Amino acid sequence: MKKILVIHGPNLNLLGEREPGVYGNDSFESINNEIIEHAQKYDFDCEIFQSNHEGEIIDRLHMARKEFDGVVLNAGAYTHYSYAIRDAIAAIKIPVVEVHLSNIHARDEFREKSVIAPVCKGQISGFGKFSYLMAVDALYYGWKASAENE
Amino acid sequence: MKKILVIHGPNLNLLGEREPGVYGNDSFESINNEIIEHAQKYDFDCEIFQSNHEGEIIDRLHMARKEFDGVVLNAGAYTHYSYAIRDAIAAIKIPVVEVHLSNIHARDEFREKSVIAPVCKGQISGFGKFSYLMAVDALYYGWKASAENE
Amino acid sequence: MKKILVIHGPNLNLLGEREPGVYGNDSFESINNEIIEHAQKYDFDCEIFQSNHEGEIIDRLHMARKEFDGVVLNAGAYTHYSYAIRDAIAAIKIPVVEVHLSNIHARDEFREKSVIAPVCKGQISGFGKFSYLMAVDALYYGWKASAENE
Amino acid sequence: MKKILVIHGPNLNLLGEREPGVYGNDSFESINNEIIEHAQKYDFDCEIFQSNHEGEIIDRLHMARKEFDGVVLNAGAYTHYSYAIRDAIAAIKIPVVEVHLSNIHARDEFREKSVIAPVCKGQISGFGKFSYLMAVDALYYGWKASAENE
Amino acid sequence: MKKILVIHGPNLNLLGEREPGVYGNDSFESINNEIIEHAQKYDFDCEIFQSNHEGEIIDRLHMARKEFDGVVLNAGAYTHYSYAIRDAIAAIKIPVVEVHLSNIHARDEFREKSVIAPVCKGQISGFGKFSYLMAVDALYYGWKASAENE
Amino acid sequence: MKKILVIHGPNLNLLGEREPGVYGNDSFESINNEIIEHAQKYDFDCEIFQSNHEGEIIDRLHMARKEFDGVVLNAGAYTHYSYAIRDAIAAIKIPVVEVHLSNIHARDEFREKSVIAPVCKGQISGFGKFSYLMAVDALYYGWKASAENE
Amino acid sequence: MKKILVIHGPNLNLLGEREPGVYGNDSFESINNEIIEHAQKYDFDCEIFQSNHEGEIIDRLHMARKEFDGVVLNAGAYTHYSYAIRDAIAAIKIPVVEVHLSNIHARDEFREKSVIAPVCKGQISGFGKFSYLMAVDALYYGWKASAENE
Amino acid sequence: MKKILVIHGPNLNLLGEREPGVYGNDSFESINNEIIEHAQKYDFDCEIFQSNHEGEIIDRLHMARKEFDGVVLNAGAYTHYSYAIRDAIAAIKIPVVEVHLSNIHARDEFREKSVIAPVCKGQISGFGKFSYLMAVDALYYGWKASAENE
Amino acid sequence: MKKILVIHGPNLNLLGEREPGVYGNDSFESINNEIIEHAQKYDFDCEIFQSNHEGEIIDRLHMARKEFDGVVLNAGAYTHYSYAIRDAIAAIKIPVVEVHLSNIHARDEFREKSVIAPVCKGQISGFGKFSYLMAVDALYYGWKASAENE
Amino acid sequence: MKKILVIHGPNLNLLGEREPGVYGNDSFESINNEIIEHAQKYDFDCEIFQSNHEGEIIDRLHMARKEFDGVVLNAGAYTHYSYAIRDAIAAIKIPVVEVHLSNIHARDEFREKSVIAPVCKGQISGFGKFSYLMAVDALYYGWKASAENE
Amino acid sequence: MKKILVIHGPNLNLLGEREPGVYGNDSFESINNEIIEHAQKYDFDCEIFQSNHEGEIIDRLHMARKEFDGVVLNAGAYTHYSYAIRDAIAAIKIPVVEVHLSNIHARDEFREKSVIAPVCKGQISGFGKFSYLMAVDALYYGWKASAENE
Amino acid sequence: MKKILVIHGPNLNLLGEREPGVYGNDSFESINNEIIEHAQKYDFDCEIFQSNHEGEIIDRLHMARKEFDGVVLNAGAYTHYSYAIRDAIAAIKIPVVEVHLSNIHARDEFREKSVIAPVCKGQISGFGKFSYLMAVDALYYGWKASAENE
Repeated sequence: MKKILVIHGPNLNLLGEREPGVYGNDSFESINNEIIEHAQKYDFDCEIFQSNHEGEIIDRLHMARKEFDGVVLNAGAYTHYSYAIRDAIAAIKIPVVEVHLSNIHARDEFREKSVIAPVCKGQISGFGKFSYLMAVDALYYGWKASAENE
Repeated sequence: MKKILVIHGPNLNLLGEREPGVYGNDSFESINNEIIEHAQKYDFDCEIFQSNHEGEIIDRLHMARKEFDGVVLNAGAYTHYSYAIRDAIAAIKIPVVEVHLSNIHARDEFREKSVIAPVCKGQISGFGKFSYLMAVDALYYGWKASAENE
Repeated sequence: MKKILVIHGPNLNLLGEREPGVYGNDSFESINNEIIEHAQKYDFDCEIFQSNHEGEIIDRLHMARKEFDGVVLNAGAYTHYSYAIRDAIAAIKIPVVEVHLSNIHARDEFREKSVIAPVCKGQISGFGKFSYLMAVDALYYGWKASAENE
Repeated sequence: MKKILVIHGPNLNLLGEREPGVYGNDSFESINNEIIEHAQKYDFDCEIFQSNHEGEIIDRLHMARKEFDGVVLNAGAYTHYSYAIRDAIAAIKIPVVEVHLSNIHARDEFREKSVIAPVCKGQISGFGKFSYLMAVDALYYGWKASAENE
Repeated sequence: MKKILVIHGPNLNLLGEREPGVYGNDSFESINNEIIEHAQKYDFDCEIFQSNHEGEIIDRLHMARKEFDGVVLNAGAYTHYSYAIRDAIAAIKIPVVEVHLSNIHARDEFREKSVIAPVCKGQISGFGKFSYLMAVDALYYGWKASAENE
Repeated sequence: MKKILVIHGPNLNLLGEREPGVYGNDSFESINNEIIEHAQKYDFDCEIFQSNHEGEIIDRLHMARKEFDGVVLNAGAYTHYSYAIRDAIAAIKIPVVEVHLSNIHARDEFREKSVIAPVCKGQISGFGKFSYLMAVDALYYGWKASAENE
Repeated sequence: MKKILVIHGPNLNLLGEREPGVYGNDSFESINNEIIEHAQKYDFDCEIFQSNHEGEIIDRLHMARKEFDGVVLNAGAYTHYSYAIRDAIAAIKIPVVEVHLSNIHARDEFREKSVIAPVCKGQISGFGKFSYLMAVDALYYGWKASAENE
Repeated sequence: MKKILVIHGPNLNLLGEREPGVYGNDSFESINNEIIEHAQKYDFDCEIFQSNHEGEIIDRLHMARKEFDGVVLNAGAYTHYSYAIRDAIAAIKIPVVEVHLSNIHARDEFREKSVIAPVCKGQISGFGKFSYLMAVDALYYGWKASAENE
Repeated sequence: MKKILVIHGPNLNLLGEREPGVYGNDSFESINNEIIEHAQKYDFDCEIFQSNHEGEIIDRLHMARKEFDGVVLNAGAYTHYSYAIRDAIAAIKIPVVEVHLSNIHARDEFREKSVIAPVCKGQISGFGKFSYLMAVDALYYGWKASAENE
Repeated sequence: MKKILVIHGPNLNLLGEREPGVYGNDSFESINNEIIEHAQKYDFDCEIFQSNHEGEIIDRLHMARKEFDGVVLNAGAYTHYSYAIRDAIAAIKIPVVEVHLSNIHARDEFREKSVIAPVCKGQISGFGKFSYLMAVDALYYGWKASAENE
Repeated sequence: MKKILVIHGPNLNLLGEREPGVYGNDSFESINNEIIEHAQKYDFDCEIFQSNHEGEIIDRLHMARKEFDGVVLNAGAYTHYSYAIRDAIAAIKIPVVEVHLSNIHARDEFREKSVIAPVCKGQISGFGKFSYLMAVDALYYGWKASAENE
Repeated sequence: MKKILVIHGPNLNLLGEREPGVYGNDSFESINNEIIEHAQKYDFDCEIFQSNHEGEIIDRLHMARKEFDGVVLNAGAYTHYSYAIRDAIAAIKIPVVEVHLSNIHARDEFREKSVIAPVCKGQISGFGKFSYLMAVDALYYGWKASAENE
């Protein structure tokens, strides 16, 4: 059974309350429940982690390299400048899928660039809470393809 | 029953043969079959269109606004400079999901910027042929959410 | 009797339907009729051409150099990157007047620059359908001035 | 009866004498007479104002908001850096049409950008003295359209 | 009675000792006392918080949205790159006033830009410790004006 | 008794009428009265000056160096390009406090940079009419601190 | 016997008539004849293709990968922005030599950069019609060297 | 007898008092006297003009075209952004020599660029008051050379 | 006896395991042992500190100003954007030597700039684990020179 | 009989030994022999010159203007910054053909721009040693065309 | 008696022959004679040096620091990129006056910036051969002023 | 016994006399003696070379590839623009260590970038004369590590 870690970066704990026009009305808890439920369809064990601290996200990524098979990461605003998180992703060997609730390519100029994208497997952006579900799918597709190729 | 149009832009007809290290070994035909099959799971009627001509892609998007419920678009290199395709997407009202086989944020600098992203619903980038399947999922998720909110 | 060619670039065929807040409610046909009518005041023979294809616009400009006395050109989004259309205008000797429905200098940053402007006679931008009528006037004024100077 | 104000910015008082290769041979007086005459066709009352002083142009725009129905403005070189004139245009409610004798998009790089364009109704550039006449037409077209829509 | 939170970002705990030529000789404690005293004039309850950790500042802003009526924020160097703090400010609904001891617009080029300014109520920069007192005044003025408008 | 000069730059004479969504509904006169009244609390003699002319603002700053003890300056749009006003401020020895009604760091890109900031004592931006009152406070705080240090 | 394809991009069909000061007086036909004749010296079978359509050039490059041994390509203005043609060149395996009649490095700034150069074998620029003959030579030299190395 | 006009731009009236470390201790009057005296050596009639108003400098340049044979111009800070003064210089036919007291190429970045330089005869920068004397010499050398070539 | 603090920034705890092609095969522990051993040659007391948290690095630098005589700092990815760490270094008075395992000037563009370099004593980059030993030498050389100059 | 000078710039003396993956395995001597031999086909007298010194290349170009009919120049890295060599080429009247072994438009960003290109007849880049032979051809073609036109 | 050294940089030896439209018809020798003659008016001993070699110019500047009282330097194209010459000027203590025959601020963009200007006493640009004479005057004026101040 | 070559670039011959505030008071000779002495500790044979000529430095690097085992290079101002020296370093196979007396990352903007860094082994910057000694150490450490790995 695969184990996946979902990491939510800064301010995502306020989901549902924070700028609902941009990020939607679903609460942080309900979205996490949907993700866990979705992961169970693939029989994935899914853990949720949220932190507003860049360092804690790095620490968690380091830990994940031994405890998990894949990571779904919404780094929030750190996406746009945390080269330290980028280095953490590059340093570990499990796949990391980058997700965003809003379409970061359609908003402020500073949100357009993701400094972590070059070391992630791929990026999903703009589908609200469904971005997370699609990221779980992406991990599934990837592992299925690897298994078939063996 | 929803009808979806998959548009492949320039050079995608050579899939399987073209730079397999970047774009994979699956042939154009087999990928299209996988997309159609995947769409059928949702009972979607799925049509495939490929063109190397910017104008034909615009013509097809115009036509789509009356004939289809949603579009999956891999605009190939036009992604990076075709403001005419961007305007075509903005001019029609059905949702357009942007997909890329490779992670465009991890390659040449010119590929990093998508001029069509700001008018698309969202962007999926870097999951090989699975990017297309995930785009079909994204349309499904979106319609399901709309239906539930009514 | 002078013959003028009006060229509409990409997405202008959707006028009236496309983003009416920006481009107005008049249909493509009714605007063309107004242009033809306006041209008749000066006894100009006026032909309308629309294409979403960059290459067809170039082909048409080439043909125009033998068949028409002047061109009114709204190159749509091609205005902002088609150096090929620019070269076509520079290659022919009849006057080309650049028009835009919306004020391109007051919208997205990428619309601000016209790569065809340096080889056009002049630019009219922001007066809705009247931009076309004014372009016809501009051709008239120019020919009248030439005639008077002879 | 509509009242329109034509504002000529810096160095335009030297028209006819100044760089005739760029700006033409007609004298400042004769061009003004042609504008007034052209306005009379529409039964417009037309006043001419010229100043080399940025502050005086702002003062005149302020006064115009109560005394005139529309403004034709050639801000000369101030076009390219006077954010103060831009703010003055934004502060008054009557339409301001931006005109240029030469095609500013085809000359020095610094002339390409108009800082006042985003707050003007539209821009006419490159038709010599006829640019002014076309601006009068533009005001006429705009008012006629408003009247018809009421 | 209004409650206000004063947040001091990184290195401000060294005030008085750190580069006194730039930041003044008053100690961190004495400045905080002056702020509290000043707030008491308006009968404001004032709490002081300092952290060198970006994540802790975000956490504190989140908490503040339920416990305080307004925030005075000197984000120190985070001002210039912490889009995560910016998102935290945008996510909460109470007013945040940005302050700086030194005139950030008159120092190193990197200090000129504040990434948090667009989501703050206003910015006060360059008045030494008095910047904080003026920020308290700004909150007072704002609340008084709101009260008067009701 | 200290004498202070308040200089309002271009278009500020239209306050209350001009873009009230941005600049508020209070009339120019009522704001000036509030400033004078506020200054009287500190027993300051306060004079108001407004001009749309860059040159007059410079002349007035020159005169001020002998007649006043401090200046509150809202240079309006000149803030963003008048290096001549900047040099005037640098040339006189009395403190100049820069104020803005709106938060210039949260609007158009061109408004973000103040070319006069590096030679002003500090900048207050975004508190509406209260920005002026706070500038008077800033002069008071500064003089009080100087007096205490002597 | 080697087969080579010469592709002329947009506006090159007007050679001899178009801006002869820049592109020379020889007609399109006579230049093509010279190229064919030159190719015959090496016993190369040489086909000529011209199109103003980006998409047709891509289609032709795709076809060429099976029918020809090498390509001489003057992409005209598409040289400077057609990433789609670039991708087409990268997708096929036969050598493509980039040619320009004028010295693109000595004209307008936008002509300086070739987006197709990084995937072409080499670039020849500035020798008028002889650029084409030299490109044929380049293919010959390359094949001769390969043959000698085997 | 040649007549020359010396134009001093903004803030130069404060010479001697203004930032003496940069601009020297000589008073405005004494420098003007030295210039007049120096001009007399060549039997030149020399008039001095100073203004802080951009518009007045333009007016004066216009007048100068009929009354003077040459101009020595220190445009002060207007040097760096007044395209209106640039156009005025280009509009008149007498030679204009640009001078600066300080070495503008060795100070703030914004001072490095002179927008008027391209239309002036030459530039002298960095020799204090002697820059003016050298400008008078430059006019003399130019006229002597012209006389010798006739 | 001098006391030195070695600070390792984010991801350096994974040394030996993380991208060994770039950072080498030696484990974090063995490198630290080599540093301590090397410091002992100079009779320096050497403490090691590692953190992935920007705030903890700042806290540690603050503490170091009283407890240590010098710092060897490899700020990892924070090197390239942590102006907060920069300010911390500037705020303390003991010498800080910047080290990098890889040659940051020979890798990704974003790694080229060190925002902390301007406030460090010097920079050593590219010598693998030896960079640390050389930094210890640099502290030694500096203190020896100071001692000799007294 | 025409005389041509081949100038090799810095580091080209190491050809064959230096980065053979980029520059090929042929030795400097053997390439020079091939060039001389190739030139003899046209009955050209061909001299070879190599220097690592910018000044010597300029001196040689000066001398060449009297002794040679044309120059083949590979300026090596000086291509990208030696405005002094550019001025030397502009100062002499004989044709200079710019050559590069590797395709400079397909390597490091700094190699993309040639500062000497605007004053050379044309540029040949990317054909290894054959670039030199093609440059000799280019001189031949040019002279033949001139002869035919007389 | 003062001794001055005139240094001519690359390509200036071709004066009179090289691009006479830009640099004039006077020969290098005749200009040097005029300079020497002009210097004798002030009783200055004047030596002329020309080199196309950056290193020789540096060597000569080093030597000059002991043998001469001042330098007149036209660094030719090295003006725009030789930071090594800049450092040489900064390293010596005698005044260096920068001269240019043409107005470098009115030509190609790359000529606009002088990297040596910040370490020269001043710059004279655009007066043809008279620029040199004026530079001699500048040295004279400077020494006279120093003498008077003692 | 290893042989190392120390290359000093332009203006370094003036060490001790040139800007001692930046570069220190030690004379060129004494520093060279310290380097030689330091090298002897490792039993290295050390030769010193200085030149102000870019070409001579390239020649010397070429020669070094056969005569020396390693190079310590302070390229002075050539560091910032000599792509020719960069190519020379890349062309030879022995290790080159880049050194700077001052911290180039803490001075003028143009000094921040080293164009030779990407082809050097590493960079040592800011430790005065000790930078050279540390570079010798770096060569030692590197060779020792290689020896141990064999």
